[in-house]
Amino acid sequence: MIETAYQRLTSRFARIATIHEASSMLGWDAAAMMPPGGAAARSDQLAVLAGLAHGLLIDPATADDLAQAEQAEAADAWQAANLRLMRHAHTRGTALPADLVEAQARANSSCEQVWREARRRADFSLVAPHLTEVVRLVREAAQALAPALGLSPYDALMDGFQRGIGAADVAPVFADYERFMREALPRAEERQARRPPPLRPKGVFAAATQEALCRKLSARAGLDYEHARLDRSIHPFCGGTPSDVRITTRYDEADFSQSLMGVMHETGHALYERGLPAAFARQPVGEAAGMAAHESQSLIIEMQACRSDAFLGWLSRELAETFGGDEAVYAPDNLGRLWRHVERGCIRVDADEMTYPAHVILRFGLERALVAGELSVEDLPGAWNEGLHGLLGITPPDDARGCLQDIHWYDGGFGYFPSYTLGAMAAAQLMAAARRALPRLDAAIANGDLSPLVGWLRANVHGLGNRLGFNDLLRAATGKPLDPRDFEAHLTTRYLA
Amino acid sequence: MIETAYQRLTSRFARIATIHEASSMLGWDAAAMMPPGGAAARSDQLAVLAGLAHGLLIDPATADDLAQAEQAEAADAWQAANLRLMRHAHTRGTALPADLVEAQARANSSCEQVWREARRRADFSLVAPHLTEVVRLVREAAQALAPALGLSPYDALMDGFQRGIGAADVAPVFADYERFMREALPRAEERQARRPPPLRPKGVFAAATQEALCRKLSARAGLDYEHARLDRSIHPFCGGTPSDVRITTRYDEADFSQSLMGVMHETGHALYERGLPAAFARQPVGEAAGMAAHESQSLIIEMQACRSDAFLGWLSRELAETFGGDEAVYAPDNLGRLWRHVERGCIRVDADEMTYPAHVILRFGLERALVAGELSVEDLPGAWNEGLHGLLGITPPDDARGCLQDIHWYDGGFGYFPSYTLGAMAAAQLMAAARRALPRLDAAIANGDLSPLVGWLRANVHGLGNRLGFNDLLRAATGKPLDPRDFEAHLTTRYLA
Repeated sequence: MIETAYQRLTSRFARIATIHEASSMLGWDAAAMMPPGGAAARSDQLAVLAGLAHGLLIDPATADDLAQAEQAEAADAWQAANLRLMRHAHTRGTALPADLVEAQARANSSCEQVWREARRRADFSLVAPHLTEVVRLVREAAQALAPALGLSPYDALMDGFQRGIGAADVAPVFADYERFMREALPRAEERQARRPPPLRPKGVFAAATQEALCRKLSARAGLDYEHARLDRSIHPFCGGTPSDVRITTRYDEADFSQSLMGVMHETGHALYERGLPAAFARQPVGEAAGMAAHESQSLIIEMQACRSDAFLGWLSRELAETFGGDEAVYAPDNLGRLWRHVERGCIRVDADEMTYPAHVILRFGLERALVAGELSVEDLPGAWNEGLHGLLGITPPDDARGCLQDIHWYDGGFGYFPSYTLGAMAAAQLMAAARRALPRLDAAIANGDLSPLVGWLRANVHGLGNRLGFNDLLRAATGKPLDPRDFEAHLTTRYLA
Repeated sequence: MIETAYQRLTSRFARIATIHEASSMLGWDAAAMMPPGGAAARSDQLAVLAGLAHGLLIDPATADDLAQAEQAEAADAWQAANLRLMRHAHTRGTALPADLVEAQARANSSCEQVWREARRRADFSLVAPHLTEVVRLVREAAQALAPALGLSPYDALMDGFQRGIGAADVAPVFADYERFMREALPRAEERQARRPPPLRPKGVFAAATQEALCRKLSARAGLDYEHARLDRSIHPFCGGTPSDVRITTRYDEADFSQSLMGVMHETGHALYERGLPAAFARQPVGEAAGMAAHESQSLIIEMQACRSDAFLGWLSRELAETFGGDEAVYAPDNLGRLWRHVERGCIRVDADEMTYPAHVILRFGLERALVAGELSVEDLPGAWNEGLHGLLGITPPDDARGCLQDIHWYDGGFGYFPSYTLGAMAAAQLMAAARRALPRLDAAIANGDLSPLVGWLRANVHGLGNRLGFNDLLRAATGKPLDPRDFEAHLTTRYLA
């Protein structure tokens, strides 16, 4: 039997994906299990594996097979998409000169180290020269990637996290949301002020009991623990591989809110991985469709489903049964006031769903200006504080709670921030479409049953893998590209009705 | 700066070792953490990593650099030994044709699967044809390795687990021990029969309490948990890497014996990994000196130190303090009768230290005959039962408790069994040497202080890495090659005095 160029490519990309699986497991271990003394050896292990995967990708044989496979007719749309994604990965992998990649690795690593100290001391000047170098190299990389991908430099960076959407699509959507929020936020605050403040859970809620409940709820949402683990880490995340998903959370024995909502968030990510098309496992087309698509899946479970009135009514009884004590805390209305509380704050990761996009809009504007060379690093703290004030009317008390709060830029991550809000908006848009398709959706959710929702997501998102870019995925699932109005309608119903 | 061939080799072997580190971590995860659904993907990951490491080893550039480096003068004995070990690894890696390696992987894997069923049903005939094929391929491999290594076929197999000792060294040592045991075992049994039977621990001994004690005792023995973890697995083992050692055990809440002695055993392995020469990390000369050397380090901690009268006197108080209840169980004399009980049994892994070598001597004889083609697979059950009866005077009730009990042969592992007894003998020989060098050794052990022993092992075993083969290592540390008399003297003192 003669192997075709396409078949050779699928073998090669399967090997690459298998190496990435190993790296993903080692990354999970580093966050959830590894003793501190293992850190240095672990970075070496990850670097060697990354180098091996990259070597397979940029091997001249890959280019030869791609050229040959592109001459043949694709068997079907899946194969055509897979081949396009192989070409796309190869283009990204070969567009950057090796010395630039190395310089970035060095600069990002030392900048990130210094950032930790700068944030601790709230002293931006410490890290400014390092960030200047990181930005210089990011611009160089963006300029090398742009022509290869046929995108603008900033879009070439975004494409590294989420393909199929660019700044020209995002900017009007964010502008629309900004207008909406300027009007909606004061009204939501006013309405909130008229209601009694929530009763706060007063633990001790034993970590083991919280963990058992988290496991039960995530399993009920469809996570199969024959193919998954739930563990603890400082920063919750979802890692592992599609057949062995690893989610983590942390437990605060004074309050179950963070672990519970956090685990439902990670469960959304995990269900996406579990639902990817098995027939294309380890192929580019069988992967998740990008970071914004991934975030849409965590947020549709956490924000759209689990924080809905319907679900809270059901969850209320589960909580009372599990933890006992003062039942007023678990009343659906109280859970709503607790977990749907709007507040203007400086810290992105603590933000509610209405103000969160403001944090992203701020960073989107600033990072585009940095990449375009229109904003210099030394002017960043001022621009940040001015921008936040313009959006939310508040000013960070120091840079630790301002432009030093997030790791992303300091480790070279430019073009990633929009994913959070694109995901939140897509979650609302998908939920609206699911509701149209499934009239009994909310009735099921009111019984704590997410299976109709998850079934719809499997058919319309998970099972499509990476066949479609972000806007095309939304078009296929909801009939339109990214549209902020579903998200705005969701917020209006939840916070203003 | 011009890189020498030797420097290129050190980089290449460091990459290979780093891949092996990743595999080792994934192996630990598979045993201690992985949900069952991750198994298929995990074997793919391990296979891809093994293939990549092998590819780097047999790359033509490795051969060129070896030839060139061997022309140059070595900087010192370490470098000379490292280069010899690189050549040795390359010779082993290239001696077998790729199709033989593949055929072995397939045959071992399917034989191992069938073995599980055959053992469950106690039906050797199920697996006999598979084992015949495994043995055929092992013989082929041994015959290919032998001329390349300048060893006999069986020694070439042994060399894969423990270099520096062969069947001609082992056979007289085992014969000597057999003579000793025939005389000593009845006397030990007689003496044992005159003493009261041990009081058995009657739990519940909570797993968490056992685990805390295991952690405390292993830390006290020198295991630094900044660079180590203790977890649970069905089959206890020591894995991970020198800077991040992972040991496991299992807990029986009815009895703390297994977890406690098991953890001290794995601690011995872990201390060896931790004590390897850091200057030669990821180099062949910086690795442990082989499986028998490794077993000597687990057994010197578990059998020589922790089951000694001196240690049991100290441990007695720790146990009473930790678990409370009936203090008579923790009396040093009772612990001695509990943990130093001689009994003729069919199962190797359950054997005491005096009869354990009989199980190994049996397998050593049988596997040499299989490899030499002097014993056919269909005659194995009969030869096994006859051999065990000749050594211990007992006959297995069925093959599940006879020639089907161990996985080793069924997954292609020939030449490994001697390591267990070589390790036990080396442990006694090293202990005798440490005692000569450190007159206060037993006084320290009687205070629960293993640091003088571990310090001596670091200087005389751990810190030497893989510079010396097994017999040379013993020569350097004890003044003589493997000698069964120290082990026999140890048993005489412990079981006959």
